[in-house]
Amino acid sequence: MNRFLDLADFSRDEVMDLLALARRLEAHPEPQALAGRILGLLFMNPSLRTLSSFQAGMMRLGGSAFVVTPGQGTWNVETRTGAVMDGGAAEHVREAIPVLASYCDALGLRAFAEGKDLAADLAETPFRLMAGLCDKPFINLESAMNHPCQALADWKTMDDLAVPRTGRFVLSWVYHPRALPLAVPAAVLHMAAQRGMEVVVLRPDGYALPGPVMAKARAAAAASGGSVSETADRAAALAGAHVLYAKEWGSPACYGDVDAESALRRPLADWQVREPWFAGTRADCHFMHCLPVRRNVAVADEVLDGPRSRVVREAANRMVVQMAVLHRLLRGSR
Amino acid sequence: MNRFLDLADFSRDEVMDLLALARRLEAHPEPQALAGRILGLLFMNPSLRTLSSFQAGMMRLGGSAFVVTPGQGTWNVETRTGAVMDGGAAEHVREAIPVLASYCDALGLRAFAEGKDLAADLAETPFRLMAGLCDKPFINLESAMNHPCQALADWKTMDDLAVPRTGRFVLSWVYHPRALPLAVPAAVLHMAAQRGMEVVVLRPDGYALPGPVMAKARAAAAASGGSVSETADRAAALAGAHVLYAKEWGSPACYGDVDAESALRRPLADWQVREPWFAGTRADCHFMHCLPVRRNVAVADEVLDGPRSRVVREAANRMVVQMAVLHRLLRGSR
Amino acid sequence: MNRFLDLADFSRDEVMDLLALARRLEAHPEPQALAGRILGLLFMNPSLRTLSSFQAGMMRLGGSAFVVTPGQGTWNVETRTGAVMDGGAAEHVREAIPVLASYCDALGLRAFAEGKDLAADLAETPFRLMAGLCDKPFINLESAMNHPCQALADWKTMDDLAVPRTGRFVLSWVYHPRALPLAVPAAVLHMAAQRGMEVVVLRPDGYALPGPVMAKARAAAAASGGSVSETADRAAALAGAHVLYAKEWGSPACYGDVDAESALRRPLADWQVREPWFAGTRADCHFMHCLPVRRNVAVADEVLDGPRSRVVREAANRMVVQMAVLHRLLRGSR
Repeated sequence: MNRFLDLADFSRDEVMDLLALARRLEAHPEPQALAGRILGLLFMNPSLRTLSSFQAGMMRLGGSAFVVTPGQGTWNVETRTGAVMDGGAAEHVREAIPVLASYCDALGLRAFAEGKDLAADLAETPFRLMAGLCDKPFINLESAMNHPCQALADWKTMDDLAVPRTGRFVLSWVYHPRALPLAVPAAVLHMAAQRGMEVVVLRPDGYALPGPVMAKARAAAAASGGSVSETADRAAALAGAHVLYAKEWGSPACYGDVDAESALRRPLADWQVREPWFAGTRADCHFMHCLPVRRNVAVADEVLDGPRSRVVREAANRMVVQMAVLHRLLRGSR
Repeated sequence: MNRFLDLADFSRDEVMDLLALARRLEAHPEPQALAGRILGLLFMNPSLRTLSSFQAGMMRLGGSAFVVTPGQGTWNVETRTGAVMDGGAAEHVREAIPVLASYCDALGLRAFAEGKDLAADLAETPFRLMAGLCDKPFINLESAMNHPCQALADWKTMDDLAVPRTGRFVLSWVYHPRALPLAVPAAVLHMAAQRGMEVVVLRPDGYALPGPVMAKARAAAAASGGSVSETADRAAALAGAHVLYAKEWGSPACYGDVDAESALRRPLADWQVREPWFAGTRADCHFMHCLPVRRNVAVADEVLDGPRSRVVREAANRMVVQMAVLHRLLRGSR
Repeated sequence: MNRFLDLADFSRDEVMDLLALARRLEAHPEPQALAGRILGLLFMNPSLRTLSSFQAGMMRLGGSAFVVTPGQGTWNVETRTGAVMDGGAAEHVREAIPVLASYCDALGLRAFAEGKDLAADLAETPFRLMAGLCDKPFINLESAMNHPCQALADWKTMDDLAVPRTGRFVLSWVYHPRALPLAVPAAVLHMAAQRGMEVVVLRPDGYALPGPVMAKARAAAAASGGSVSETADRAAALAGAHVLYAKEWGSPACYGDVDAESALRRPLADWQVREPWFAGTRADCHFMHCLPVRRNVAVADEVLDGPRSRVVREAANRMVVQMAVLHRLLRGSR
């Protein structure tokens, strides 16, 4: 393993092996496993969990890390192939990535969707190009359409909580003042399907996830014995749910059209998770969210501060699963 | 000890024990004492000394540190309880603090005063709430009304310089273009009183420190055998002083009222420490300041570059005393 | 050795000793050589390579590093002696440098030219003053007129590539939307002369390097058996070249005069390195650039992506030679 780009690149058994390694490192720390190894972290976009958990994870394995943040102490970088660089970017990723790779033993990259052209973002062309520029082990810290570290942490969180493999997992759209990327919903949807769950995507009209995202999840469900469906009917979706996973995302139907998206979004402020959403779920239904979350906009305090909330545990599991990823990338297959 | 929030939480003997540990670590380095331990540092406000000295201190004890700076590569965070987060902040401290705590072995937080409502800032409500969200050892890196690391470093600096326990300590207001927080004057005033000194607060009319701040210092003085007085008479204050500690702060009398504060402050530019200020002090009177300092505005070059200045030593002692705090927090009572 | 400010401070043999150490560390890593040692890095200006390669280099030798970036999480700093600090800067380097030095075992500083007064920038007065404020080993991470780490890495790169000591080295001005500092051209010119090469500075009218820069390089060439000449004739300059080293810089003739400089620069956009530039060079002529580079503005994709380009190797060598500098500064003369 020398790339961690997408959970879909791994079989269900391989993911479970990785989770077993995470669990082993949790139970039996290996404070020297990565002694002398260096992780480079390149952030094109803001971060709290990824920034801190990758550094802490390396340190807990005896390694170290450095952080590069274009626009914050580092030159702005260009990602477009063939660009005439007469604007704000002083450096191209074609240089920046191989140079950073030369300093470290593994490189992580965060680069969000551009948010203008859905087909382009679905293709992940710039991200795959950037990954291809790195001759060291490479980690996706969130790309246009993926966030495999989040998905892996969420899988472990459900295992920790003994959520049944075949449990009902409802991924629900929630309101946000702006159109956010599709990376987390796409990654989490696929993860739940790959885990073998009964997955329901609950979203208002206009917010159906793109066809290729749904198709990829359906393929994973078919392989694992799970299922994927979608609806705009909240009560139907949530009936009997083991997990409600809330996420904000922009409308694929008017992707890149800010005005149309705002108009579509405006009447949907009631898509804020409140306690009554759980009326028809299982009594022990868990509430999940990848964070950051806008309180009392996307999710009410009563839910985040209530007994169903697993959001801090999910975030804590980020470090744990990432330690397994780093261990696997830098120490080989076992 | 698993909180370092305020020197007032410790008895005079406990503070002296901590200083003895600092001195021991200075004389006998322990480069592996905190091997494998991780410090998280969350900065809501700018820093030079705190940022670098806490990292360096951890490294000198064999540990490591990561830094999170909302608004600089990390999401802006909301601190108000019950906020409807439809503005610039994407994340709430109710999530951010427990998540960061899960990655580290101790967490430090800097969060300055809001500067609008004096009673609210005096109550330190948000800071104590944030400290309460952290289930790991927690360090105050400067709150609305406190800066215990600075106070502890200053205490050690005076010990280093053999300033008598009962020496005359003059905390003087000095000019600054803006109203700065009360954290350092409040912390340093209390420290000098707790040390047992003859403390005089020298400040122009309108800049008397808040009643609760003075009362807290007077209580510390009563316990230690020291005293606390205040005056606007510079010559009277400085007569016989062992230490002149200069600090800029905003008027408590017109707290949060920018226009009134500016009008009050405008005629006070002569409150800039110059060599003649030392005419009536002891010949060996030390000049202290917590830094950063605006040269030739708050303090003249002739003083900062002269033989009385201890400002670099104070800053150097920040690392030393913080190593003792970290050692105590992460290694237990001895 | 306790200062690394300028390659000119070292004899040719001393530089070659340093490169031999770099080569030894490359072949025989010393992962504990600087265990427990701390490097402080103070960046007044943006960085990618310097920021990451110094951190990674320290880590590869078992040490650690902290980064301070005024204006990005740290107070803005004033560098002018005698300044009345009533503007945007809250702290003076007269405090910041000794304070940071007290926390670390070696300090690096990046502080670009002010770009207003050529004589002042040539004098490097503020930088030498700042270096003088540091009582620990000190490293120039790029000053107004120097970048010794870049120059040393480039020397090693040419050694790696077996470029003859007496080979023809063409330093060519290339186009950039703005007037950039003279630090890299001055440092690289001197390096090639000190290495003993046949150095040609190729630049349009108005872009001749300042007299003192040329004189210093000529003195180095005289000592090493090399030569330095300059011309605006591209074909003549490049005939038989072993190396084409491209660099953007502002006109010394209208230094600090933005409008005049823009007018002078405007017609020069064809000074973009393209493959035809190599028509008269040696067949195996290497292309070098210090990075960051604006693609298709300063240098065309066809050159950067072609077989002549050594830009990533140069950047990779930054870490390697800096490890030698750190080793020498922190471990003594051998």
